[in-house]
Amino acid sequence: MTPHGVVETPVFMPVGTRGTVRSLGPDDLAAAGSQIVLANTYHLFTRPGHALIRELGGLHRFMAWPGPILTDSGGFQVWSLSKFRTIDEEGVRFRSPLDGAMHALSPEVSVEIQHALGADVIHPLDEFLAHPATREDTERSLDRTLRWARRAQAAHARGPGGGQARPGGQALFGIVQGGAYADVRVRAAGETVALGFDGYAIGGMAVGEPKPIMYELTATVAAVLPAGQPRYLMGVGKPEDLVESVALGIDMFDCVLPTRNARNGQSFTWDGPLTIKQARYERDASPLDRECACYACRHFSRAYLRHLFMADELLAYRLLSLHNVHFFHALMAAMRAAVDAGAFEPFRARFFARYAVSSEAGPRENISASEA
Amino acid sequence: MTPHGVVETPVFMPVGTRGTVRSLGPDDLAAAGSQIVLANTYHLFTRPGHALIRELGGLHRFMAWPGPILTDSGGFQVWSLSKFRTIDEEGVRFRSPLDGAMHALSPEVSVEIQHALGADVIHPLDEFLAHPATREDTERSLDRTLRWARRAQAAHARGPGGGQARPGGQALFGIVQGGAYADVRVRAAGETVALGFDGYAIGGMAVGEPKPIMYELTATVAAVLPAGQPRYLMGVGKPEDLVESVALGIDMFDCVLPTRNARNGQSFTWDGPLTIKQARYERDASPLDRECACYACRHFSRAYLRHLFMADELLAYRLLSLHNVHFFHALMAAMRAAVDAGAFEPFRARFFARYAVSSEAGPRENISASEA
Repeated sequence: MTPHGVVETPVFMPVGTRGTVRSLGPDDLAAAGSQIVLANTYHLFTRPGHALIRELGGLHRFMAWPGPILTDSGGFQVWSLSKFRTIDEEGVRFRSPLDGAMHALSPEVSVEIQHALGADVIHPLDEFLAHPATREDTERSLDRTLRWARRAQAAHARGPGGGQARPGGQALFGIVQGGAYADVRVRAAGETVALGFDGYAIGGMAVGEPKPIMYELTATVAAVLPAGQPRYLMGVGKPEDLVESVALGIDMFDCVLPTRNARNGQSFTWDGPLTIKQARYERDASPLDRECACYACRHFSRAYLRHLFMADELLAYRLLSLHNVHFFHALMAAMRAAVDAGAFEPFRARFFARYAVSSEAGPRENISASEA
Repeated sequence: MTPHGVVETPVFMPVGTRGTVRSLGPDDLAAAGSQIVLANTYHLFTRPGHALIRELGGLHRFMAWPGPILTDSGGFQVWSLSKFRTIDEEGVRFRSPLDGAMHALSPEVSVEIQHALGADVIHPLDEFLAHPATREDTERSLDRTLRWARRAQAAHARGPGGGQARPGGQALFGIVQGGAYADVRVRAAGETVALGFDGYAIGGMAVGEPKPIMYELTATVAAVLPAGQPRYLMGVGKPEDLVESVALGIDMFDCVLPTRNARNGQSFTWDGPLTIKQARYERDASPLDRECACYACRHFSRAYLRHLFMADELLAYRLLSLHNVHFFHALMAAMRAAVDAGAFEPFRARFFARYAVSSEAGPRENISASEA
């Protein structure tokens, strides 16, 4: 339950980096079955600025999305997008790639921005380490992330400055870091839970570590997290990752994959990824996925979508994005139904028997400045 | 009345060059109030090919647009888009800019393509002259266009080859050429009408001639055309051109302006064009046009649309296109109501008292290969 509605889990959150899920409007998102969208604090902070969004009534009104919104803290984006950055105990300083201006992001400023945006779920600034990192660096970074988490809690408790009332019901999630070391992850989870948050995000995953390690670490952390609170695996992932992670007890996911891959001509089906530009689809009258009920599949053939894509028509990106987001939501809905029926393992077996797992690089392994 | 429904005139037709009105899907077009869309024979001929579209059930099904479709003959696009072309009595030969392949387009082939596409209104191949042209060249070109029109009529009467039945109810319009010479235009109109078509298009306008000349020639031609049949002014135009041309008795229009200018950040309002990237809209909470009922105006502020446009977000193009197409249709609906009420002149006076006419170049004066 959030101030903007109930979220059924497990749930996939489309990524609305700059206050839009790329080519999809809120009408498209609602039709695709989106319950909650993610927006990036870093991107909205650098453009158009959180003060402007607050002045215009907050992010929900600005982007005309009436449902729940989750924002990250901006830490990951500073790490991945800013070439010039310095990190110390106070926070991070970075030069905006947009206009070269210097910005400072501290745990307090990050919370202040997220208060201004008015998201339903917000996050404390965390420090991010490249993979692989030494144990010593990982431990030191974790300690800082935990100190920053306490500062974020204090800032959140104080609420926005200037005499304004604290936005009602914004949830603050803790972020569990700890790199690729299982015992450090266990300590991270324990100490984050001890601080007490409304939910728990697992950060620093899908950054280049082998998939089995990712699943193992996720399982390790999930075992420490409290059963009654949401568990969010940040930045994950591919359909197969979602299925495996739900099996490990994860409730929430976000990833740019459905929209980014759409722009590269890749769609997702129950049989696996489908690359629309392949010549074999040139005269194919069937929809992207015969079982899909999305607007694109109800109206258009693969041949038409291929034509649009080959002709660089903007409608191609919207229709493929719409389908992909719809597919991700349909996958989550199928998993929710399987969980409710107490039949998740049979579902998982059926899914992997049919879905042709792609060997391409994961979403975070090839970070693009435009959407990470 | 067409095989795919009634069209109320005067009407504006959005341009779906390659079988899509750029970023707008058929759902968007229906919501914007589109009655009939235009598609370009030249573009669909060179990609994906009319045989493929016929095989997939025709253009209506291919692009999932259930309403009427009008196609041009391809003549104008060969003239404007192909660097390498030769024209003789048989037809035009040109090298496709897409793949360098040589294509031949004759009056018979143009009709065959349009039969395959299955448009509700089709056109005969016409010869196109650059403005300005000498009287002698204009006369000679007109005579060829008239001979080609007779060949197109014969091909249309024969119907598609291979034993197939002729597509039901496809209307064939005649095209009135004649350049910038009023008396040649009068002869063109008279001889085209004498051939007998389902409607009459006025071609070769808005190609660089001064606006007063365009209006004068349009009036001259309109006076010769039969009262009970549709009159279509090809490639026109700006809102002010639509109002002036309806005053001259024109029923049908098409132009890339609403979608092309949207991609450049220009929207149209009852007060005149509005350039969304201007700094003055940075914190503007009002919609593009307070009187507009389109999806964009009902949900988004100028500030949000400006943010999307400055961030190069695809949603900006869709929302501005949606608004612009909606505005053009609302303008036509207002003119229909004024005509029905016998009050067109007061409407026209009110329109020009408020609408700030832009001094920018017209739609055809800066032909882009991507959309002309």
